[in-house]
Amino acid sequence: MKAIQHYYPEEYKQCFGCGTRNEHGHHIESYWDGDIVVAHFTPKPFHTAFPGVVYGGLLASLVDCHAIGSAAAFATRAEGREMGSEPKLRYVTGRLEVNYRAPTPMGEVLELRATEVEISERKVIVDVTVSAAGKVTVEGRAIAVKIDQVGM
Amino acid sequence: MKAIQHYYPEEYKQCFGCGTRNEHGHHIESYWDGDIVVAHFTPKPFHTAFPGVVYGGLLASLVDCHAIGSAAAFATRAEGREMGSEPKLRYVTGRLEVNYRAPTPMGEVLELRATEVEISERKVIVDVTVSAAGKVTVEGRAIAVKIDQVGM
Repeated sequence: MKAIQHYYPEEYKQCFGCGTRNEHGHHIESYWDGDIVVAHFTPKPFHTAFPGVVYGGLLASLVDCHAIGSAAAFATRAEGREMGSEPKLRYVTGRLEVNYRAPTPMGEVLELRATEVEISERKVIVDVTVSAAGKVTVEGRAIAVKIDQVGM
Repeated sequence: MKAIQHYYPEEYKQCFGCGTRNEHGHHIESYWDGDIVVAHFTPKPFHTAFPGVVYGGLLASLVDCHAIGSAAAFATRAEGREMGSEPKLRYVTGRLEVNYRAPTPMGEVLELRATEVEISERKVIVDVTVSAAGKVTVEGRAIAVKIDQVGM
């Protein structure tokens, strides 16, 4: 199965969050899992806030990037189309909300789960949870705004 | 003048956002400027989303870290004390909101300006703007939650 981000057009490939060609970036990969979209990410040892706790800015980044990828997937599905079909729908973040419910422990594979909240012509609202060892530590929401097609 | 983060106790010094001892981190430094707290940050070339545009996850991180440092400064001021005096007040992010008003251009020194919104016994609410070349591109708010004193 191909990650949603791998359907992105060329100008996305340098993105720090998901770009396959950004050697310093997070390389986030999001996949359909039934009706939701899931990603896994293992923080690096330097992605720490306090000792043993994952840096909140990284968690905000993960929520943001996973939500934006999922927004494209949800909107494409809403049009009855497959990812990769034309026109490719693309989104940027208009608003991001992140609620830190509990410290996120280092040393775990984090699971991000994105659910569709609302789709309109110009926007997709996506909720994302981050969990570590089966416990949700972060709940976020992104308002993804559709951008016009540019050259691919 | 000493950055607010340089008054942090030892266990903060590995923080990816502001830790002086995290060699991979952002090393955010926030300073009093009259009644507000200001920081400057120059994104690295790989901190990109699309070509020419700063990665939104980095901007969320900057808002978060600058707000948390500023929360400590605002709360210490509210007690009529100087940064560095005991007890040192420390905060973590409870909630982060980021509104992306316009694309943030690469190649500029970003200015972050934090203002005090509300202080209570356990929480400080801080608003932060990010501007590039004099234009505000991001508006954020953090709810900073006080944490108990631990060993320093």
